[in-house]
Amino acid sequence: MKELNVALIGCGFMGKAHSNAWRSVRLFFPEAAAYPRLKVICGAPEEDVQAYADTYGWEEAANDWAATVARDDIDIVDIVTPGKLHAPIAMAAAESGKAISCEKPLANTLEDAEKMVEAAEKAGVINLASFNYRRVPAIALAKQLIEEGFLGRVFHWRAQYLQDWIVDPSFPLVWRLQKSEAGSGALGDIGAHITDLAYYLCGPVTEVTGHMETFIKERPVLADVTGGLSAKAGQGMGKVDVDDASIWLAKFDNGAIGTFEATRFAPGGLNKNCWEINGEHGSIRFNLERLTELEVFSRKDPAYVQGWKTIQVSQEDQPYMSAYWPGGHHIGWEHSFVNSVHDLLEAVANETEMRPTFRDGLYVQKVLAAVEASNESRQWERVV
Amino acid sequence: MKELNVALIGCGFMGKAHSNAWRSVRLFFPEAAAYPRLKVICGAPEEDVQAYADTYGWEEAANDWAATVARDDIDIVDIVTPGKLHAPIAMAAAESGKAISCEKPLANTLEDAEKMVEAAEKAGVINLASFNYRRVPAIALAKQLIEEGFLGRVFHWRAQYLQDWIVDPSFPLVWRLQKSEAGSGALGDIGAHITDLAYYLCGPVTEVTGHMETFIKERPVLADVTGGLSAKAGQGMGKVDVDDASIWLAKFDNGAIGTFEATRFAPGGLNKNCWEINGEHGSIRFNLERLTELEVFSRKDPAYVQGWKTIQVSQEDQPYMSAYWPGGHHIGWEHSFVNSVHDLLEAVANETEMRPTFRDGLYVQKVLAAVEASNESRQWERVV
Amino acid sequence: MKELNVALIGCGFMGKAHSNAWRSVRLFFPEAAAYPRLKVICGAPEEDVQAYADTYGWEEAANDWAATVARDDIDIVDIVTPGKLHAPIAMAAAESGKAISCEKPLANTLEDAEKMVEAAEKAGVINLASFNYRRVPAIALAKQLIEEGFLGRVFHWRAQYLQDWIVDPSFPLVWRLQKSEAGSGALGDIGAHITDLAYYLCGPVTEVTGHMETFIKERPVLADVTGGLSAKAGQGMGKVDVDDASIWLAKFDNGAIGTFEATRFAPGGLNKNCWEINGEHGSIRFNLERLTELEVFSRKDPAYVQGWKTIQVSQEDQPYMSAYWPGGHHIGWEHSFVNSVHDLLEAVANETEMRPTFRDGLYVQKVLAAVEASNESRQWERVV
Amino acid sequence: MKELNVALIGCGFMGKAHSNAWRSVRLFFPEAAAYPRLKVICGAPEEDVQAYADTYGWEEAANDWAATVARDDIDIVDIVTPGKLHAPIAMAAAESGKAISCEKPLANTLEDAEKMVEAAEKAGVINLASFNYRRVPAIALAKQLIEEGFLGRVFHWRAQYLQDWIVDPSFPLVWRLQKSEAGSGALGDIGAHITDLAYYLCGPVTEVTGHMETFIKERPVLADVTGGLSAKAGQGMGKVDVDDASIWLAKFDNGAIGTFEATRFAPGGLNKNCWEINGEHGSIRFNLERLTELEVFSRKDPAYVQGWKTIQVSQEDQPYMSAYWPGGHHIGWEHSFVNSVHDLLEAVANETEMRPTFRDGLYVQKVLAAVEASNESRQWERVV
Repeated sequence: MKELNVALIGCGFMGKAHSNAWRSVRLFFPEAAAYPRLKVICGAPEEDVQAYADTYGWEEAANDWAATVARDDIDIVDIVTPGKLHAPIAMAAAESGKAISCEKPLANTLEDAEKMVEAAEKAGVINLASFNYRRVPAIALAKQLIEEGFLGRVFHWRAQYLQDWIVDPSFPLVWRLQKSEAGSGALGDIGAHITDLAYYLCGPVTEVTGHMETFIKERPVLADVTGGLSAKAGQGMGKVDVDDASIWLAKFDNGAIGTFEATRFAPGGLNKNCWEINGEHGSIRFNLERLTELEVFSRKDPAYVQGWKTIQVSQEDQPYMSAYWPGGHHIGWEHSFVNSVHDLLEAVANETEMRPTFRDGLYVQKVLAAVEASNESRQWERVV
Repeated sequence: MKELNVALIGCGFMGKAHSNAWRSVRLFFPEAAAYPRLKVICGAPEEDVQAYADTYGWEEAANDWAATVARDDIDIVDIVTPGKLHAPIAMAAAESGKAISCEKPLANTLEDAEKMVEAAEKAGVINLASFNYRRVPAIALAKQLIEEGFLGRVFHWRAQYLQDWIVDPSFPLVWRLQKSEAGSGALGDIGAHITDLAYYLCGPVTEVTGHMETFIKERPVLADVTGGLSAKAGQGMGKVDVDDASIWLAKFDNGAIGTFEATRFAPGGLNKNCWEINGEHGSIRFNLERLTELEVFSRKDPAYVQGWKTIQVSQEDQPYMSAYWPGGHHIGWEHSFVNSVHDLLEAVANETEMRPTFRDGLYVQKVLAAVEASNESRQWERVV
Repeated sequence: MKELNVALIGCGFMGKAHSNAWRSVRLFFPEAAAYPRLKVICGAPEEDVQAYADTYGWEEAANDWAATVARDDIDIVDIVTPGKLHAPIAMAAAESGKAISCEKPLANTLEDAEKMVEAAEKAGVINLASFNYRRVPAIALAKQLIEEGFLGRVFHWRAQYLQDWIVDPSFPLVWRLQKSEAGSGALGDIGAHITDLAYYLCGPVTEVTGHMETFIKERPVLADVTGGLSAKAGQGMGKVDVDDASIWLAKFDNGAIGTFEATRFAPGGLNKNCWEINGEHGSIRFNLERLTELEVFSRKDPAYVQGWKTIQVSQEDQPYMSAYWPGGHHIGWEHSFVNSVHDLLEAVANETEMRPTFRDGLYVQKVLAAVEASNESRQWERVV
Repeated sequence: MKELNVALIGCGFMGKAHSNAWRSVRLFFPEAAAYPRLKVICGAPEEDVQAYADTYGWEEAANDWAATVARDDIDIVDIVTPGKLHAPIAMAAAESGKAISCEKPLANTLEDAEKMVEAAEKAGVINLASFNYRRVPAIALAKQLIEEGFLGRVFHWRAQYLQDWIVDPSFPLVWRLQKSEAGSGALGDIGAHITDLAYYLCGPVTEVTGHMETFIKERPVLADVTGGLSAKAGQGMGKVDVDDASIWLAKFDNGAIGTFEATRFAPGGLNKNCWEINGEHGSIRFNLERLTELEVFSRKDPAYVQGWKTIQVSQEDQPYMSAYWPGGHHIGWEHSFVNSVHDLLEAVANETEMRPTFRDGLYVQKVLAAVEASNESRQWERVV
């Protein structure tokens, strides 16, 4: 069993989620080809990073990402910074020959994303666009069922990612509501997830038509730099220049048609990433708010006993679940990251590809760009 | 208590549903301003109509709709024929000064629908476009909550009407799959319902962009003229020239945005007319497959106990429910028609307006026409 | 197709439910062996009965049950009076050779119930103990699945009948809360239903141990004689001498064990008659508050896709459902009575037995009597 | 922030769950009064323990529990061995003045449990009976609501703990199915959990009547010593001398009545620990298979909008949840242990009591003993 040294670049919400995954993976996957050593966490400001290192269990704290990714003793660079920094860090890491994991969305611009793909592919390093939901066990089971032919020809994809954290107009202008920082709003943040899942489960989209809406056009400026859910409002108002909600229609390469909705204005949706696929032999649906359940409908059952079946995904013969607890002892959202880092460790140790790659992440960016173009042109736009 | 004489024109699926409503309304609403007398049912062929009269409880059977609607002893004409006949019958009934109920969609063409509106308004008769779902008690409760301010400003409307009865490609080419008979496919048949509900609960739509899809382009011709779910395939194939599924986006006059989906290709949806509205104070959702439940989410509850609440709509202080059984003894789909004919009897007896009127039905037709136009133009289209 | 003349004895809540069933059955079952003629409704006081006859659609109103059941032109006597009158009416009807339907519970005392069985069996007339829930289509489907071997050996029965209509201590002392009128409280009223369902689906019970509780021991006396949910409190208090709730354990003849709970003190349960059966091959469960759904779990599915499946019981190849509407257009509680009177018409026309018979109803009484005995003895009691 | 040294005694399923909790607690609760140092894990055989130490992150491996609990550098002894060893280890740890956590059930015999209470109370050490479900956030929220008066007077408690892992008669005779090892079957294993929850949420039980059943009386002996869910059958059959299922009724000190069911023979229940409480103002229910949801019903809502509300327990103003992720990012079963060790660290650092204590655990044993006595006597038995 190999030991692989990891450097984590970034300390925010995703820093916590990834640290927890790196810390926990060996306990759950003792038979893996490799286990990680939490070598160094890198961020700013200096004094905070040491606190994160202590709390999250990293051996060292660092402030200079360039120096960190260049270290000879690092095998894997895990990037969880804001989107603006993804490209420079990833390109440097590629140049240093490191395996790379990069949080979604891959980059704030298509250009950056393309450079990252080029750099990683040229360097021949493992490059993971960290769309963690692919490794929620229920979604992995859906993928398995689809590959087994459960759906047959697909007719419909329908996905909604519903949140409600900015419904209150007094919620301040955090960085996620500013185009210069975040690129886009609901579209790039959560729309990216359902776009990746559509691609994963239903294949490429060829055309889209969409609409982006900003319901609350001005908000109080921030009282200070913190930007989480408990952000405080300061004096004065500022302009919201990203979308509060985006909705779009799509045509898939396989002939299916799809509807997508990403919004931060749906009270009752906390983190409701849900989708349904309808095919000739049956249907499958999922809701992240019940992430250990998968619902399936089979037209192959006798007609008088057809119905939606709720599968508890918590049992050893389901994807990833032999790593955890006996059936009915459920895992949580964070375990999608544990599964991801496990698969990454395997890929690095065995030198195999791991998807979604940067190229897959670039594809997602292209779909979102087509939605933005359509919002301008008020017409269908091709994904190119 | 008045007695009002009813003539039913048509004997199909809707003929059964309306007959049942007329038969049952007095038992459930003994205090109403009027009760109906089931005077005459009119249809073809002659021998069948007598059987329907016997089974459904009509005093007389007739074959000539023109003569029937002209009878002096008829107060209400209830039209449940195929769409092609709506306009001539309704116009004749208006001219005879009868109160009119007409099944949805109002007509197969915009022109016909406009003529019907004109005739009814000129005659000054009560004219009901029979969108029965407005009178499902749970939906009536939703309307009441919205009027009480439960939602406040509305952000999102999202509706799906999912069926699956023609997924099998060997299902034959019934009249509902032919443009000449049905006007359109899923769009006009079930899309009309969610369009009316959006209008009822969320107000007028100003613009749409949509896509119509025919997944199975050819089907076996019919073995005989019957066209129900148990239709039999004959020799040879014919072209399906209506939509199997339609999806569209919409902008509402009140600033909300909406997604719509009407399909006959969603296994697991038998008759899943479901919708959700998100507003600044909360959300409401409904699913016809659990028609006695309404789900609501209130942002006014303290944060630590917010959640979706499932209201059983079966109690005497909820719309229409004092007519039926004690709480928890649920009614069914058919009672939406009982409620409709009750309200119609009240309107006729009291000479008050009843909605949705033909003009409301015409509005629904205009929205659907804009979806069809958008499907051609591949752009957003205004509803005019 | 035969015409059979019906006399209904009683005008209350059940009078409305049965009238509706008799009125509607021909429309839904036009191919049945017989249809009913609503000949006479019999009750008191005289002036009210005529109003019921008008509203519910009976040809005649009568006040003398003895004369009514003796009429030569009556084929079926349907008894929906309070329990005290069941025995005399049923015995007279049997003597007159009429087919008899009698509401549950069969009688207020075991002695009365035994006399009824004897009289009906001696007369050789069809005698139905009207436990309507056996003819809820979802429950009929459960029975069918059990007979097909879906469960195999049965381990557990667990049933709850939860209501909440007397939680408020100011609700007055209606007749259902008085032993002299009602025999018992929750036990005989709703406990009888789950006892019959256990017998129907799981077979005979051999032993029980139980507890009966009266939470509110005194209540305001009634302001007047009406006793429905909207009863008004008068001056003074009276003693509640029936059970508010009863709970019991049971052993079945087939080796299964069971838990039962009948209560009027469970907020959130309006009419929640729910049960689950666990067997070696799978499980089945039902909840009357979603009466068109049946949930099943099969151990024969591959382990990785096992789960509870929710079957919509609304389709033509499910019990009784070809009589109604296309799939997904749901029926309600009242249709259990439509199905019952249909089956009764068939039985009378074809001279076949119909269950549950009075003897089945007597069996239910015996189980409830054993629960009452156990509540006294604080020990297990055999059902004899 | 203090550092506290922990010794874990035992390496099985619970050893994994507790190790994970000790490893993770600092990351989730960085502000706690203390954090743990995973000093030593103790078990057998020797070579395996080292592997567990490596995998689970303990600094040392040990084989001698007596020497381990006596070490001066240990602050907390965490006991996760089979039940037989609980008493000797806990008593030694108490004598050494260590804070103690002991897995449920507290001991295999009442005598042992009483000695443990005496030893711990005499030594004045913190003593936790580790019923982890009290610290599932949704259950902690239920407790909070009850203390806020949400229920008022309580009428009913109803709990079921449903599993199905031994339905197959070829599943072998693992230690959990042998009285000499496990004390009892479903009763002590899972019945203990619902007994503790009833005590926690509804208060003490005064009397019980129950029945214990063994459906499969003989099973194949084990092929080897392992005893998990993937145990293999060997040659020959052995006697099952514990209960497959236990059911009982109870009277509570507060006047409520209760039903309990613990079974390993309920297909469709993987780990379905579910309960409902009905009180004068409302009801609360929970199901461990959806452990991040709590359902509540309030009679204080206006009647026309009353209903069961599903609260997602994933938000920062709900018990324990500020430690984890933003709302809608759900935690899992294992986090009940993280919360437990956090509270234990707080209690040890602050020298405050922590419940459930050994005395609470003893109380649970007494209730279960009364159920066993009742199963013999066939009468109600008092809890003494």
